[in-house]
Amino acid sequence: MGTKGNVNINWQGEMAFEAELNGHKFMIDAGEKVGGKDKGPRPKPLMLAALAGCTGMDVVSILKKMRVELDDFSIDVEGEQNDEHPVQYVKMHINYTFKGKNLDKAKIEKAVNLSQERYCGVSDFYKKVIPITHEINIEES
Amino acid sequence: MGTKGNVNINWQGEMAFEAELNGHKFMIDAGEKVGGKDKGPRPKPLMLAALAGCTGMDVVSILKKMRVELDDFSIDVEGEQNDEHPVQYVKMHINYTFKGKNLDKAKIEKAVNLSQERYCGVSDFYKKVIPITHEINIEES
Repeated sequence: MGTKGNVNINWQGEMAFEAELNGHKFMIDAGEKVGGKDKGPRPKPLMLAALAGCTGMDVVSILKKMRVELDDFSIDVEGEQNDEHPVQYVKMHINYTFKGKNLDKAKIEKAVNLSQERYCGVSDFYKKVIPITHEINIEES
Repeated sequence: MGTKGNVNINWQGEMAFEAELNGHKFMIDAGEKVGGKDKGPRPKPLMLAALAGCTGMDVVSILKKMRVELDDFSIDVEGEQNDEHPVQYVKMHINYTFKGKNLDKAKIEKAVNLSQERYCGVSDFYKKVIPITHEINIEES
């Protein structure tokens, strides 16, 4: 079997927790409507951040090997939740936006597809439960 | 359908991204062995933080309703990954540790079970793919 990873969270009163992950600390908290103080992000959208970061790192690594130079790159992941307990994501959409000079569209599409179909473990995991769609925007710098 | 949530991540060069989630910003980065600078946690373990925070908030809410007073509460989530692409979690284990005076073990077990079996959407989602086990430790303050 492979490597192990872990996270530790410590309760800070009310709905707030301090998380420690790879030696980095950050707060997780609920919003004020449900008894929190908004000291940090909600826990569930961290699932979206895991997906965004995973595919983002794949794509920059692959494009670097392809010698594609980016001026800017951002990813927006939107998740839609159901209404019943247990409340959870029922679909996600990834929006990739690339900026650069004369960017090679075919190489960018290949990098995104390699991440979505082969490398991104978070995407592969989530796709066993829900549909994940994506779109690619390329802008000239 | 239910509410929508989203995360935005912006590339900061090399393997680093700045994430914005519920108005809070934090860094995501790779370790130095894979070309990162460790400016923030890895993306994949954010899946563990989502699970820990989700069940943690359930448990503190339920115990508050049960009038169980905690002096301290922490959760450790360990995830084990496979070795092949796409690398992903194949199992997770949640370790709940409660500290207080004369804590009611039955109420604590009930709160954890309600989270794991009914309320925690992250746990329910992940359990459709992998086994998630848990244990409860109760310590006297």
